[in-house]
Amino acid sequence: MRGVMAQKRSADSGSSQRRRTGPVGELAILTRIRARARAAGTGPNVRLGIGDDCALLRVNPGEEIAVTTDFSIAGRHFELAWHPADAIGHRVLARGLSDLAAMGARPVAAFLSLGLPKELAGVLNPRGAKSGSARQASWIDRFYDGLLALAREFRTPLAGGDLAESPIAAADIVLLGAVPSGKALLRSGARPGDAIYVSGSLGGAAAGLVLLEELAATQKPSARHGLRIQRKFEAALAKHLYPEPRVRQGLWLRKRGLASAAIDVSDGLSTDLRHLCDESGVAAEVEAGALPISAGATIEQALHGGEDYELLFTARLDAKVPRKIAGVAITRIGQMVKRSSKLPIVTLVTPGGREPLEAQGWQHFA
Amino acid sequence: MRGVMAQKRSADSGSSQRRRTGPVGELAILTRIRARARAAGTGPNVRLGIGDDCALLRVNPGEEIAVTTDFSIAGRHFELAWHPADAIGHRVLARGLSDLAAMGARPVAAFLSLGLPKELAGVLNPRGAKSGSARQASWIDRFYDGLLALAREFRTPLAGGDLAESPIAAADIVLLGAVPSGKALLRSGARPGDAIYVSGSLGGAAAGLVLLEELAATQKPSARHGLRIQRKFEAALAKHLYPEPRVRQGLWLRKRGLASAAIDVSDGLSTDLRHLCDESGVAAEVEAGALPISAGATIEQALHGGEDYELLFTARLDAKVPRKIAGVAITRIGQMVKRSSKLPIVTLVTPGGREPLEAQGWQHFA
Repeated sequence: MRGVMAQKRSADSGSSQRRRTGPVGELAILTRIRARARAAGTGPNVRLGIGDDCALLRVNPGEEIAVTTDFSIAGRHFELAWHPADAIGHRVLARGLSDLAAMGARPVAAFLSLGLPKELAGVLNPRGAKSGSARQASWIDRFYDGLLALAREFRTPLAGGDLAESPIAAADIVLLGAVPSGKALLRSGARPGDAIYVSGSLGGAAAGLVLLEELAATQKPSARHGLRIQRKFEAALAKHLYPEPRVRQGLWLRKRGLASAAIDVSDGLSTDLRHLCDESGVAAEVEAGALPISAGATIEQALHGGEDYELLFTARLDAKVPRKIAGVAITRIGQMVKRSSKLPIVTLVTPGGREPLEAQGWQHFA
Repeated sequence: MRGVMAQKRSADSGSSQRRRTGPVGELAILTRIRARARAAGTGPNVRLGIGDDCALLRVNPGEEIAVTTDFSIAGRHFELAWHPADAIGHRVLARGLSDLAAMGARPVAAFLSLGLPKELAGVLNPRGAKSGSARQASWIDRFYDGLLALAREFRTPLAGGDLAESPIAAADIVLLGAVPSGKALLRSGARPGDAIYVSGSLGGAAAGLVLLEELAATQKPSARHGLRIQRKFEAALAKHLYPEPRVRQGLWLRKRGLASAAIDVSDGLSTDLRHLCDESGVAAEVEAGALPISAGATIEQALHGGEDYELLFTARLDAKVPRKIAGVAITRIGQMVKRSSKLPIVTLVTPGGREPLEAQGWQHFA
């Protein structure tokens, strides 16, 4: 194998002719991403976006900066053969926005480090995916379509990142948010007696994934371009392919000071509620009959399925938690109780009795 | 192929027994990283580190936040068979710190998203790499040894990140820094007549890589553990394996207001000077005889070799730029000139005459 630097030089000396006739490769892609990111809007907090050694951001006086990074890897977090490219872009950003939502932070900027095999970086359609051209937009263009559409919806400028050739597709999303000092929603604030709430419904992402897997088994997809989703399946797959991060609901809760603790349901209710209990030093009881189960999902999917990106939060018993926040249903599903060596950390209460609810979410390297 | 979620559940149901007997896998690794990051220090700017949905940071009133992300991928940016694990950790963080240096920003916090094959996440030595135990520390432990040693040196707390199992090793480092509003060193401030300076010496990282490649060809390394570097080669390899980001020099330049523009030499002088020219709208002349070439390096390596992580900056002719900043030599290597269609963007001036200096740095997807 030749050296990294030696590869660099040989790759470059071969392309010096092309360079004179115009930018190719990474620089051309970066120029295009820069233009698309600018077109999607930079907002008041980004003083300097893509193009220098660092981006420069500012937040308001008295605000803290919330930072989260989420790594998505082909074969682990998404499948190139199943997931439409725009859904992968959407999901990558949704993961990060959901972490901001769980802190009650407003989005300030996103950064994306993207590693792609050469064939996915492909030839960029100079008119973009939205042009009427019959020529299909490239994978990377459709990936950014999905990511930037969600970024626009939540006014989150793409302010930087990195791009590299990689044997596998991998995307690390970084989200910066702002929250008034000392006011962020934390995992650690729940107390015995607090009621437990969840936004929206649970299990829909897991049910959608099962359906997607079934569709993949009956079609012969191009291994690199994702399934074509028939219209009749769109609704059933939406919660999996295009989850809506609960940014508005997190902001609402933080502004009203109603939540004592919060986390997003990314690894599954059983796992994320366990995290909340561990960080708060309490135990929890969940009433099975109260769970808002997504249409088409099983109770197992609602309890253990990940990637719903709903908000799980607690509030004092006398807090006036509404039935809806910013258009999304809020359901009380149980209560926090005192931690004790005699009790499971999370108990599921069913008509048949009480049983321990084991964390069954995903663990890497298990 | 089974579904992502189906994989999750089957992987987990198999490990539920183990979970009851103590944490395994990802959670155990994260617990250990959290403890090591805390031991390395969190600093005054990190209000909340690893363990919640986001980290919370604060900067001083009147400061802007500088953000950079750098993706390092096995086989592209490092070789597992050559590079010692601690050198990979060091280099990953050095790339990010060098971007902060180029803006004149002080480090506030680092975030690391790490994807690793299972065998590299390995069994962690519970007493860490520094224990006197004869048992060898795991790859991931030694990786963090290198990263956290450099983090301590530059008072950069590791405040968060992500961890995932991955077919290839990949690390995305995110650095946040702080800089007084409007005072960051930019690529865009150079004017015709400005002198061009570089810190330290150039070409040493490229020369070290060639040596490393030669050593790899003569030894039979374990494919997963990097070469054992003999003491006599340490000095020659240091600039490649353990580059020193010029954070102190960048801060000094920003505080004195001496530099009109700056960039770090990560892709090679010919490429990074070209970026500086493009963003500033000027051209440049470099005097070959003035270049500070690292011991053992060729002029080609000094001109085009990347990863030296020196600072390249410009200053007005009447600026009093010292010969050393914070112990590191500063050398004047040329001057900026007016851009013209009749001139190359970068000209190399040699005793034999003048020639265009083409950007020959690495481009992904070229």
